[in-house]
Order: sequence, then structure tokens, then C-alpha cells
Amino acid sequence: MNEAEFIEISDFMNLLADRSKVITLEGFNSNLTLKVKDDGSPVTDYDINSEKTLREIISAKFPNHNIIAEEMGFTSNNSDYTWIIDPIDGTRSYVIGRPLWGTLISLAFKGEPIIGMADFPALDERWIGYKNKCLLNNAAFKKNYKSITSISEATVGSTGPHLFSEIGKQKYETLIKKAKYHVWSGDCHNYCLVIKGGLDLVVEEGLSSYDILPLIPILKSKDIIVTDWKSKKINLKNDLFSKYSVVVARDKNIHDTAINYMN
Amino acid sequence: MNEAEFIEISDFMNLLADRSKVITLEGFNSNLTLKVKDDGSPVTDYDINSEKTLREIISAKFPNHNIIAEEMGFTSNNSDYTWIIDPIDGTRSYVIGRPLWGTLISLAFKGEPIIGMADFPALDERWIGYKNKCLLNNAAFKKNYKSITSISEATVGSTGPHLFSEIGKQKYETLIKKAKYHVWSGDCHNYCLVIKGGLDLVVEEGLSSYDILPLIPILKSKDIIVTDWKSKKINLKNDLFSKYSVVVARDKNIHDTAINYMN
Repeated sequence: MNEAEFIEISDFMNLLADRSKVITLEGFNSNLTLKVKDDGSPVTDYDINSEKTLREIISAKFPNHNIIAEEMGFTSNNSDYTWIIDPIDGTRSYVIGRPLWGTLISLAFKGEPIIGMADFPALDERWIGYKNKCLLNNAAFKKNYKSITSISEATVGSTGPHLFSEIGKQKYETLIKKAKYHVWSGDCHNYCLVIKGGLDLVVEEGLSSYDILPLIPILKSKDIIVTDWKSKKINLKNDLFSKYSVVVARDKNIHDTAINYMN
Repeated sequence: MNEAEFIEISDFMNLLADRSKVITLEGFNSNLTLKVKDDGSPVTDYDINSEKTLREIISAKFPNHNIIAEEMGFTSNNSDYTWIIDPIDGTRSYVIGRPLWGTLISLAFKGEPIIGMADFPALDERWIGYKNKCLLNNAAFKKNYKSITSISEATVGSTGPHLFSEIGKQKYETLIKKAKYHVWSGDCHNYCLVIKGGLDLVVEEGLSSYDILPLIPILKSKDIIVTDWKSKKINLKNDLFSKYSVVVARDKNIHDTAINYMN
């Protein structure tokens, strides 16, 4: 993408997020029709309606692009470009009224997410990442961030023990015993807290493409290290079923330590 | 308290929360000077400065009242009235930049909290509870709340496994296997989600007086059941060291079920 294309795509992503925000905020303070999926995770009518709307808008503007999203799956047009969307990441938070859920949208080229957005409607906070640009609406970075370079000084977060495999959970629990603090919960919001300097490390397992890929351009734009547990780059596999493990840290030493513990 | 006294006290609590909010929000987006206390919990200069300010304002207006608070302990004047304050409940959330932390303030008469406040500066949301009045600024209750009466339909929350004793954790983990969903994290915000209808049950152990007492008048004002694990009313013991276990639910059947599991 050149600069003009970046502006076009980021404007379009803002439009997508604005549309999704209207739908999801309507549901956030009403009694939700909560369904339980086969994998035990929750879904609401608002996830589904938002995804349907976003798919329609994307297909109208870019009819040849692929789309991959949580509820209605993979629309393949054999394009090099794939839209990856999750209207409500953190559905558990959404359902209980906790405002940390976000809308994730990104565009990948040949499997690599090149521009990503995380919108937090209930917090009125929006992030877009592209190359070395990180655009942030209506929220502040922490001032005077002091770099943490050792796991013993690090604050570590992960969404929940239920996302880990049994062996992954054991490894993670050994790791966090070495850390200064640990917090559960948070979903996509935790990754933005790494950028802000509130968390030093996020480790997760069992994520889907739409849970993590849209965050990668945002993290990379601020030089946050993001790899899988084998220290490999994370790219889109064009199916709905691939699971992703991640280690996300600002500091290389902390990232290396986490990789050691998780293998 | 009569109506005029209630208005005087609630106005005064609003003033206290306004003053605390200025101090705590300043720290929320800066790099915090984080200290670790003997019990392993975090504290910042902003907790301490806010508590100091609140103590001064209370002592100036009610020089004969007792004050109990997290950092600077118990000031006893042998009064029937005790102010219970926690400037930052959820310090872990505060430190990482997660906006769920709150300022808790209440006034107890002969050990019973009669008026309570929970202020969420980063969410711009404030609750006051007194008798059957629940005043809520700048946030919406969920519409069309559908009553849940069985643990199998219930969404259950608790701040973290680290707060439980080993035996308490085992009992809690057995309980949540019977529930529909479970979430960790949240601190004082979880109790407000019970009122809003997002959570059906909160169970915790190892709380201090200032973590739970200020929430009780808010919960009671909306007919939420709040007891300890023995189903007994929770009152202030006039020391800093007492630990409180709680079961909080809207529905009596769910409350009874939790009590059964936790004993």
C-alpha cells in the first residue's frame, strides 16, 4: 500500500467500526439473547448482525477480496487480500457488562496482516496500526514508561485458564510464578495495554485467526514483539480452524524468557 | 439517618469522590511508582495520597468519627460512626491501565454500613446506595433483565484464584463447573454487574472490610442478597485484619446453591 491507499483503507475501516459500534452498543446494555456454540463459547445476535453488516459493506466495496470471520466463516475468492473480522472479541465481557470487549478488523495481503484495527466501543477508544504508524483515538499512552527487562519485574496477563491446553497451562503457571504480577481476563484489550506500558507480557494459546491477526499491525507499529510459542512469525492460514499461540512483549529479554518457559 | 441527613452525607460523599478522582486519574495514565506490600498486593503513591486527602476532609467535618482504610489503618474515636474507605479497589487493574478499578467509601453505624458509594473514575460511573435508593450517575442498567434462578443458567464471577484459600478455591472450582459461564478479574466492578444483571453470582474469600463493606448498601438497595459463606450478615469488625468471605446473588436459589457448595 502507498500512502493514498493507506488513507483510503483506514477511512474505510473507520466506517466499518462506526457501523459495528452502533449495533454492538445497542446490545451492550440490553438483555442479550445468548447462545452457546459447540465449543462452549458464547455468541449473541449482536455478534451475528454486526458481522453480517460488515461482510456486506466489504463485499460491496471489494467484491474480489476474501473474508474470514468468526460466525459466518470463510468467503474465498482466491484473492491475495483477505479481510479478517471479529465484531465482538471478548464476548464474555460483552455479555456481563464489562466494557473491555473490542471489534477487530484487518486486511491481510498474502497471509500477512498489513493494517489492523481494534475498536473499543464501550470505552470510546480506537486503534489503527500500519507499518510504523499507530493511530489512537481518545485514549492516552502512559507517560514516562519505564522499560522493564526482566520477568521478575514484569506484569503478565492472559485472558483465562480455559483457553490453554493442560500442558500449556502448566507451563504458563510456572512462568507467572517468576513474574511480579499476573492478571487474568482482558481479551484483545490486554494487547493494547502492552503498547500503553501497563502489561509487559501477554501469553495465550488456542486463539483463532480473527482473535489475534488484526492486532499484529498495531503491535508491530509500536515495536512490540509478537510471535508464536516457537518464536515464529504469525501469518494467516486461510481456514477457520487453525489455532494460534502467542507471546507478546515489548522487551526482547522478557519475550525470550517466555519462549523458553512455553517450550 | 433522616432524609435531610442522607442528602448531607451523600453530597459529602460526592465531594470525597470528586477529590479522589482528580488524584487517581492523574496516576492512571502515568508511569506508576508501584510498591509491593508484605501481603504481596500492590500499592501506589496515588492510593496513599488519595487516602490522606480523604482522611483530612472527613476529620475536618466529622472530627469525632472513626476512620478505617487500607493504607493508614484505623483511627478510633470510640464513635458509633465509622468511615470505611478504599481509594483504589482493584489496584492491579489500576496499575496495568484496565479501567475497572473503583473508589469505595461508606459510613457505618454501630458496625453496619448504612450508606455506600462506588465511584469508577476511568469509566465515569458512580453508584450510591442507601436503604432502597440506588443512585447511579452516567451508566445504564441492562434493559429487560431476565431472572435466572438456576446455577446451570448463571454467569459467575470472582476476582482471582489468588484471593482464595486452597480449600476455598477447590470448593469454588467445583461450584463454577455447574455454572453456565465463569469470569475472573473485576474487583468491585463485579458487584455492580450483579445489580446491572450481567453477573448472577459473585463469590469471594479473603476480602478486607474496605473491599466489601462500602458495596453492601448499594447491593441491598437493589435487593441483591449479600452474606458471608455461612449465610450470615456481614458487619464491620473494627480492625484492619478481619477477612471476609462473600456470596452475592440476585436470586435466592442461586445464593443457596453457592452457600451449599462453599461449606
